[in-house]
Amino acid sequence: MPTIYLITPTYYRHVQKAELTRLAHTFMLVPNLHWIVIEDSEVKTKLVFHFLHESGLNFTHLNVATPSHYKMDSTDPNWLKPRGVLQRNAGLQWIRDNFDPDHQQGVIYFADDDNTYDIRLFDEMRWTRKASVWPVGLVGYLRYESPVVKNSKVIGWFTYWEPNRPFAMDMAGFAINAELLFDFPDAKFKLQVRRGYQESEFLSQLVTIDQLEPKAEDCTKVLVWHTRTEKPQMKNEDKFKKKGLPGSDMNVEI
Amino acid sequence: MPTIYLITPTYYRHVQKAELTRLAHTFMLVPNLHWIVIEDSEVKTKLVFHFLHESGLNFTHLNVATPSHYKMDSTDPNWLKPRGVLQRNAGLQWIRDNFDPDHQQGVIYFADDDNTYDIRLFDEMRWTRKASVWPVGLVGYLRYESPVVKNSKVIGWFTYWEPNRPFAMDMAGFAINAELLFDFPDAKFKLQVRRGYQESEFLSQLVTIDQLEPKAEDCTKVLVWHTRTEKPQMKNEDKFKKKGLPGSDMNVEI
Repeated sequence: MPTIYLITPTYYRHVQKAELTRLAHTFMLVPNLHWIVIEDSEVKTKLVFHFLHESGLNFTHLNVATPSHYKMDSTDPNWLKPRGVLQRNAGLQWIRDNFDPDHQQGVIYFADDDNTYDIRLFDEMRWTRKASVWPVGLVGYLRYESPVVKNSKVIGWFTYWEPNRPFAMDMAGFAINAELLFDFPDAKFKLQVRRGYQESEFLSQLVTIDQLEPKAEDCTKVLVWHTRTEKPQMKNEDKFKKKGLPGSDMNVEI
Repeated sequence: MPTIYLITPTYYRHVQKAELTRLAHTFMLVPNLHWIVIEDSEVKTKLVFHFLHESGLNFTHLNVATPSHYKMDSTDPNWLKPRGVLQRNAGLQWIRDNFDPDHQQGVIYFADDDNTYDIRLFDEMRWTRKASVWPVGLVGYLRYESPVVKNSKVIGWFTYWEPNRPFAMDMAGFAINAELLFDFPDAKFKLQVRRGYQESEFLSQLVTIDQLEPKAEDCTKVLVWHTRTEKPQMKNEDKFKKKGLPGSDMNVEI
């Protein structure tokens, strides 16, 4: 049975441990996974280190900081920062260094830490020949985005925004066979890419549209959702401090 | 081993299926659970019906609609609506009708569908004698709220807002022995309660503060977080419609 390599960039914020916790629960239900977690930080944090070691999952813990000059201010900072680019590339490099394509079978999936995955998604991607694709829920300001499938072939993209992109899909909408990393040894994510084109730029290095394998009943079932967790406000911590009171005990890890 | 009865009110919104999916994954990892899901709706929906039947979990599916005149408009609608009151009471009634306190052991926990639960929380609550308590992360505009524990006894509450409430805890911060429902057969949640007092009003009918059992290493570990998922915008569905195009296929369930 091929191993599924999950590449998950992560970064510190208040909800990080909660997000990683429910994600790990999902992964615990799936056989033959290898979770590659790459922190966007100068050092590996105690929080992620302990979390992974206590999880019981097969994992690799990496870190690479996005240089601060890449982190541009903007009214829409999610888009202009090259979020996850260096981290996903570090995950790909780890696979190139540690996976033996002559003796192992593997599939690679970019599993961001805030999405929601139905465990049946992993059955769908397990036997990917080149690249598998499926719908993603709650993305693109739509109920879902999806490859358009006709006679079990991808013929286009259901998305409002720029449906003429080469691969108009979210990062959560595809998995690739690990062999492709060795067939195309220079393939990686790029820092300078027009917004919304990361997936297209990456996949264009590896496959053509006619090679895509539609999954999830010809792309009619949603098995992954682009959920986003609200940033919790901490205004009562500030009020404690204004009163000269300590607020919550920082030794209690949340 | 006592059964843990989870009482989960739920209602339709775009992220409902995603939330229930990751919640179910957590529950699949815990032995001897019974999940009571109560929809706030006039009828049981197909979505929740199929979801529960496909989950493989032990469950009971109920529904009770909150009458529309209880749903008051407000700038902070989360607070003024008696959200979950009738649904939690329906769950309690089901336990009173179906649980035999002379021959069964059970613990009751109010597990809202948007929180995040570490599976170790269920080990903590399993052997509750009267009522167990523990910290809750990301609630009350603080990193966490918690019972204050001294010599393994609860002596007060770490919270910014009204720490003098009888039980200044979030719904996710306690579990009760199912026997209490039979010792106090009229105990339930009430529709007319000052905001922030639901937990206090309910627990005051069942226990006194000296009976509380602090868990999670004397309330020093956070094993549940009050996460909230952003409401996804659907503005591109509207743009499709303005152009006379159908948008997403409503037969695809998300």
